[in-house]
Amino acid sequence: MNVSEERLRDDIEANAAFGELETDEGRGRTVLTGTDANAGARDHFVSRLEDAGLDVRVDAVGTIVGRWTPDSADPDAAPVAAGSHLDSVPEGGIFDGPLGVYAALESVRAMQEAETELARPVDVVSFTEEEGQRFAGGLLGSSVAAGVRSVEDALALTDDEGTTLESALESMGYRGDDAVDASEWDSWLELHVEQGTRLEDAGVPVGVVTDVTGIFHCQVEIVGEANHAGSTPMPGRRDALAAASELVLDVESTAQHLVETESESAVGTVGKLDVSPNATNVIPGRARLGIDIRDVEADSISRLTGRVRDTCERLERERDVETTFEVELDVSPTPLAERCCDAIRAGADAFELDAMDLFSGAAHDTMHVADATDAGMLFSPSRDGISHNPREWTDWDDCADATRALAGGIRELASE
Amino acid sequence: MNVSEERLRDDIEANAAFGELETDEGRGRTVLTGTDANAGARDHFVSRLEDAGLDVRVDAVGTIVGRWTPDSADPDAAPVAAGSHLDSVPEGGIFDGPLGVYAALESVRAMQEAETELARPVDVVSFTEEEGQRFAGGLLGSSVAAGVRSVEDALALTDDEGTTLESALESMGYRGDDAVDASEWDSWLELHVEQGTRLEDAGVPVGVVTDVTGIFHCQVEIVGEANHAGSTPMPGRRDALAAASELVLDVESTAQHLVETESESAVGTVGKLDVSPNATNVIPGRARLGIDIRDVEADSISRLTGRVRDTCERLERERDVETTFEVELDVSPTPLAERCCDAIRAGADAFELDAMDLFSGAAHDTMHVADATDAGMLFSPSRDGISHNPREWTDWDDCADATRALAGGIRELASE
Repeated sequence: MNVSEERLRDDIEANAAFGELETDEGRGRTVLTGTDANAGARDHFVSRLEDAGLDVRVDAVGTIVGRWTPDSADPDAAPVAAGSHLDSVPEGGIFDGPLGVYAALESVRAMQEAETELARPVDVVSFTEEEGQRFAGGLLGSSVAAGVRSVEDALALTDDEGTTLESALESMGYRGDDAVDASEWDSWLELHVEQGTRLEDAGVPVGVVTDVTGIFHCQVEIVGEANHAGSTPMPGRRDALAAASELVLDVESTAQHLVETESESAVGTVGKLDVSPNATNVIPGRARLGIDIRDVEADSISRLTGRVRDTCERLERERDVETTFEVELDVSPTPLAERCCDAIRAGADAFELDAMDLFSGAAHDTMHVADATDAGMLFSPSRDGISHNPREWTDWDDCADATRALAGGIRELASE
Repeated sequence: MNVSEERLRDDIEANAAFGELETDEGRGRTVLTGTDANAGARDHFVSRLEDAGLDVRVDAVGTIVGRWTPDSADPDAAPVAAGSHLDSVPEGGIFDGPLGVYAALESVRAMQEAETELARPVDVVSFTEEEGQRFAGGLLGSSVAAGVRSVEDALALTDDEGTTLESALESMGYRGDDAVDASEWDSWLELHVEQGTRLEDAGVPVGVVTDVTGIFHCQVEIVGEANHAGSTPMPGRRDALAAASELVLDVESTAQHLVETESESAVGTVGKLDVSPNATNVIPGRARLGIDIRDVEADSISRLTGRVRDTCERLERERDVETTFEVELDVSPTPLAERCCDAIRAGADAFELDAMDLFSGAAHDTMHVADATDAGMLFSPSRDGISHNPREWTDWDDCADATRALAGGIRELASE
């Protein structure tokens, strides 16, 4: 079976024209759900599925599936599915999402040409709004396919202007009638760019994702007392930013300690900090922190969140501030199916490609699919680890190599 | 000589009607230079000066002076001047500025009624835009009167919309022809609310300001690398917010150490912090801090600013970030004239009022005037130290007591 780097590249570059953004730093794109760019990318994808003779369906929330049923396959057998998403963050890159979608299609084309004999059909999938920039917090289409969210709830989601997902889909012609149910799939594979540097650092083209980290987001608000920076003596100040700074450093040092002692994959980040009144000559009266905690070990996540709570209590005692703690997201770590990992390893092996195990620190549709069926995921290298940015880049030969491992994995899973 | 609490209160309350703001927390006002509220407050002040028989002049930048020349005085003798400002911050209080202006007028009225014999004329002064909310960084009128800024430079100042100070003054009818030159004054006194709690804590009605602290403002920018909070391992991160947090805590602890060991009056504050991209799931790539450092000792200011620079260098080494340091304001500490302090003490003493020495942590027009002539300043208590806020409050009897000390001080200085 021959994966064509050229055909894959043509597909990804053609897709990059929708919502295109030319910057000094690279070629990017902005493709939000329901926009003209999104409609164009969808129409193009459907035409490419049809060019390959696939049977196209669209579900109620706009997730697109193209099915290939080889002559050798039992058409009623549970299919093996593979894909990713076509939407992007604002000013995002051209690989995050589309690589996985078009690699799945290229896998099918390569197997068609090689007349590969499979026992099961193969579904090529593009999930609606993985990035969550307009209607939901992310992973929208997969949440419906996995039964985590009802179709009704999803269609009623609104953007900042009050437009519903339903009307946005209808305006594009992608409010479909078909059902996509991940639990009916035998198994699932997603190829994605790593968005980190472990593959690049190791010089390995294929990453086998064994776990997707759990993600915990909380917002901590610290209320002290705003006062004149000149006429308020140091003793007795209730500086909300100084308290917040202790928390920032505590999250960092606790995560570092976990990495050194218990779990290399633990991360803790304060990504967001808003200070009020935020004037140079006024002692900050209020600080609001957005904290991101992740690990493949649920235990590390609990330890880090516990530490945040402990530190808040300490700050209340020591700095006479008030703190509130609000959980915004709490997703458990997702170990991926061993047989899917094995299939990817076998796929890489069939093409004599090195592969290494790693975990995903970012959320992906695969997290939801793994709730419904056996799921696996593979990464290809991201240059400098950069993503969500026009500077996002994966070399075309790396794209092709990872697609070979994907195709081999699909063949492995669909042969049984 | 009898200072009338009622007359003083009527004046301050009448002035509070311009730019008035009724809130649940108290009565405030917004009086920016050149607005209708400012024009109204100015017209009312001029009419009150004229009611008291004072000779009114307006200088090129709108500073208003009413001169009283008692029969006993040499009309060519250098006058004693007293006053403050009538403008406010947005949503400011009703005492900050107007108390000093109308207390100076009330002092003159009290001396007129008592037929006090003075050797020198007395000037009652309202400086243009002390708060610096529209055209300049603050202390505008006094900077021109003290010769720190030229009339031409001042008139050419523009607000955010491009309106010049000159046209704003002309539209109110306060682009005057007279010159106000602080170096021609024998001496100067300013009564102001403390904006701190030292008088309230001590239960003393009059504060004699011996020094106005120096003020140093700088902006530090820290540039690290923005990256995905999930897929970027802890080791090797270049988190600009974590670096900034170290700097925030370092400014605080260094100032606290100075207070404990060398200078009680030292303060260091990071009042402003802007983080970019400021998203919970992104490692901050950039942080911009606004730092405020003050003391009556120039040495403390140098130590604190030196420490900020040292910490930036350390952060560059230890955290692989880049830092830039930009000085925005650097005003030396201003010791006030001993003979003016003595005059205020004598004035308080004449009315059997307790007085205590303290320093001003806030900037005032008196800082500029002190460059040109002997200057003194006195404070009255601020409830809870609150200022620049509708909750700003000074009891009316405290206003009257401080005005007595001011009147006594003017009498003392103008008798010689």
